[in-house]
Amino acid sequence: MQPFSALLGTQLLAFAPGEVEMALLLKPEFSQQAGYAHGGVISYLADNALTFAGGSALGVEVLTAEYKINYLAPGQGERLIARATVVGKSRRQAVCRCDIFAERDGGEYLCATALGTIVGRSGGEPARQPDPDSAG
Amino acid sequence: MQPFSALLGTQLLAFAPGEVEMALLLKPEFSQQAGYAHGGVISYLADNALTFAGGSALGVEVLTAEYKINYLAPGQGERLIARATVVGKSRRQAVCRCDIFAERDGGEYLCATALGTIVGRSGGEPARQPDPDSAG
Amino acid sequence: MQPFSALLGTQLLAFAPGEVEMALLLKPEFSQQAGYAHGGVISYLADNALTFAGGSALGVEVLTAEYKINYLAPGQGERLIARATVVGKSRRQAVCRCDIFAERDGGEYLCATALGTIVGRSGGEPARQPDPDSAG
Amino acid sequence: MQPFSALLGTQLLAFAPGEVEMALLLKPEFSQQAGYAHGGVISYLADNALTFAGGSALGVEVLTAEYKINYLAPGQGERLIARATVVGKSRRQAVCRCDIFAERDGGEYLCATALGTIVGRSGGEPARQPDPDSAG
Repeated sequence: MQPFSALLGTQLLAFAPGEVEMALLLKPEFSQQAGYAHGGVISYLADNALTFAGGSALGVEVLTAEYKINYLAPGQGERLIARATVVGKSRRQAVCRCDIFAERDGGEYLCATALGTIVGRSGGEPARQPDPDSAG
Repeated sequence: MQPFSALLGTQLLAFAPGEVEMALLLKPEFSQQAGYAHGGVISYLADNALTFAGGSALGVEVLTAEYKINYLAPGQGERLIARATVVGKSRRQAVCRCDIFAERDGGEYLCATALGTIVGRSGGEPARQPDPDSAG
Repeated sequence: MQPFSALLGTQLLAFAPGEVEMALLLKPEFSQQAGYAHGGVISYLADNALTFAGGSALGVEVLTAEYKINYLAPGQGERLIARATVVGKSRRQAVCRCDIFAERDGGEYLCATALGTIVGRSGGEPARQPDPDSAG
Repeated sequence: MQPFSALLGTQLLAFAPGEVEMALLLKPEFSQQAGYAHGGVISYLADNALTFAGGSALGVEVLTAEYKINYLAPGQGERLIARATVVGKSRRQAVCRCDIFAERDGGEYLCATALGTIVGRSGGEPARQPDPDSAG
């Protein structure tokens, strides 16, 4: 598992070609001044889920080239869920979409949406998929 | 200070109207699988610096509505520096730009660039600038 | 109809709250050097559909504050179709998504995807929805 | 010249490695309902200038993979000027920034800013720079 994902406690819930689901339990230390999940926590999870979705589709070691995120509602509740899918892919890149939900009192609501480009690592590294047993 | 920024150890180096500089010491637990700073750490810092730059210009309590980040090079070295400026603003929003540098062996290089929209909080909260004594 | 949309010949195919469909017949003068639809034509259509989707949801006169577009495949064929939906909205903004398809030989394929923020016009203009009888 | 750029009348004012300037005379048919330049016209010009800036830096035939644009002020006046620069580049991509100004009554003001990724065309096409004698 990536050390930063281990630090935060990210969990990989589902990993299939072109489709990934991740979760992050919200702890008090992940919040901003108003007590909601810090935007940086939400965007970390989006970035991570986008990367995994791209990796699941490209089948090589990948990295996120760029992404954009729109925040829709404060992230509040027990945990965040990120669901990422592949919108389109070519040999060398996958464009992925990710919706981030907050789970609260048994329900969930959309708190952010992201769109980004995942590319295969250049330089001839041996192909390696993100490890499906560990998130991030 | 925001709990998540305290957790990571973000430092506010400069805070002037429309111009903000922040730093984050890179610790091993902030990395991804290859040992570089996790993209989520870089984008957290960009998000945070964008928000502060927008707040410094708008003079009210703010939040980031959206942003985009392009990763340019692996984040490697002793610390990350984010420099954010206001590109344009109206009464209700500031569009801000942020470059993120990695400091390494006494030099620094650009590792990411971001562009985003910061808006005043709706709902008539009392005006409150980000606290210049504490980052995030 | 907006003069630029009239110049290009944009057609509004469907207009419902939060959901808009537009079409643009591809003419030779809309292409770039390789004969495909110019990226600027595709992004114009995305921008326009995003604005209409936001307007359909907000019910006031709107403008696009920002958007991002990822090109997935060359735009080639008889016409472009843009389908935009509202992902989330608040009192003052709607975040919208738009997929742009190219119609070719009786089929269609995705050639770009966009994500953007539509806001109500400030300044107290009288509420006015985009005219559903005319695109753009 | 690209047919769509010929249709609109885009002019290339400056073309140097990593730095490009383009202009577009504003005609009544380029406007939206309020008489300002249509967002699609502004984003077309940004897209085009980003592509040329990327091409000038990469030295191969290029295309825009993705970009984001933030509108800052209505585009009003005699013409639009786009100034694009390369923020960072690798072997296969250039990340470029573009500011779009409106010229009005002898002065100019910033009306939009964009950030995007330009990539070399895959498939082994012969290297070809955008033709500096013709915009778009």
